[in-house]
Amino acid sequence: MKDEVRLIEVKEGILSENDRLADELRSELSGKGTFLLNLMASPGAGKTSLVLRTIEGLRDEYRIGVIEADIDSMVDSEKVADVGIPAVQLRTGGFCHLDASMVRQGLDALDVDALDCIIIENVGNLVCPAEFDTGAMKKAMILSVPEGDDKPHKYPLIFTVCDVLVVNKTDYMPLSDFNVESLKERVLTLNPKMEILELSCRTAEGMDGWLRWLKKQIDAVEKP
Amino acid sequence: MKDEVRLIEVKEGILSENDRLADELRSELSGKGTFLLNLMASPGAGKTSLVLRTIEGLRDEYRIGVIEADIDSMVDSEKVADVGIPAVQLRTGGFCHLDASMVRQGLDALDVDALDCIIIENVGNLVCPAEFDTGAMKKAMILSVPEGDDKPHKYPLIFTVCDVLVVNKTDYMPLSDFNVESLKERVLTLNPKMEILELSCRTAEGMDGWLRWLKKQIDAVEKP
Repeated sequence: MKDEVRLIEVKEGILSENDRLADELRSELSGKGTFLLNLMASPGAGKTSLVLRTIEGLRDEYRIGVIEADIDSMVDSEKVADVGIPAVQLRTGGFCHLDASMVRQGLDALDVDALDCIIIENVGNLVCPAEFDTGAMKKAMILSVPEGDDKPHKYPLIFTVCDVLVVNKTDYMPLSDFNVESLKERVLTLNPKMEILELSCRTAEGMDGWLRWLKKQIDAVEKP
Repeated sequence: MKDEVRLIEVKEGILSENDRLADELRSELSGKGTFLLNLMASPGAGKTSLVLRTIEGLRDEYRIGVIEADIDSMVDSEKVADVGIPAVQLRTGGFCHLDASMVRQGLDALDVDALDCIIIENVGNLVCPAEFDTGAMKKAMILSVPEGDDKPHKYPLIFTVCDVLVVNKTDYMPLSDFNVESLKERVLTLNPKMEILELSCRTAEGMDGWLRWLKKQIDAVEKP
């Protein structure tokens, strides 16, 4: 019991300092006309695949940059750099989420003024990333079909804080008992404003809906 | 920078106190002849399915109990209780992992002397659960095929600390580019002692190997 109290106190202190930093970041980016997206999901849900498909779909219209977070590898940022997009890898060295100060370091390593949209690929985790404001204007999450439709019951916070839910790996649907209607009902109960989009990064089916959503967000940030 | 240092200090204090509690738990359980397993995985990798299949396979030979951890639901413990097995639900209320003091509370709610094997289903997360000793005698993890074979690069700690890796959802293999040989190579580089078992909880294919491994562990704990 004593341990629990101690942990919460520290966390609250960190969270309020983080909120201040995140607000600072957000208004700085607004001033530059750069949209920042925080993309969250479980390990293996398809974050990097969605980032790569997004680059493919929007690179002719927008200048895109990517901040990749990982506990201990460079795998994802190398995939992004391979397609010629500016990428920064944040190695969190054990931290299971990104916070605003880590994102600040990532932004400092990018030429933000030359970018219309920066995507943060958060650490693969449905728990802690949901608690930390990174300074992003919008929060997106992916739930992949093989993970199951019961996740809103089990990780409610992330479904509550996000603006859009991408249901990925719809190509696995025939092998799965995933019920999209039950999922939608659960998600909308937690978060009536959530936009829910279904797609498959592998086959690219449904990508148009996601690109449309993202373009709308990027265009909503006024250029200075 | 200041934030990071502060967080690590607290974490270290908590971790060393946790290690003491975990050792205490472990020797207490050894004295009672009860085997305790810590089962970890991403959200949706199949932890509850493996628990249910294990109960099905071993309930005639062993007295099994289950400690379920969840941020905010009772879904999993109800599934276990439905099949007539003693189950405790630990609602972590935001904590993304279990520690030894939480497991202690779970054990206190079970009749430990009347059990041969207790399975802890940890919070769905590949990061933090790996850092906390729960007092279990062995640590098992699941990686499901749809998550991809690159996970050892990205979450190395959990692959380093576990005794056995269950590759679940092998029935998804035909739809996936998952390479079991690459996975094994990556895992064994991190942890040469890891046992790697392939199975599908849905079809039950490969369950015999897992049950054999688990029986060996339960039988290794001497009855008082």
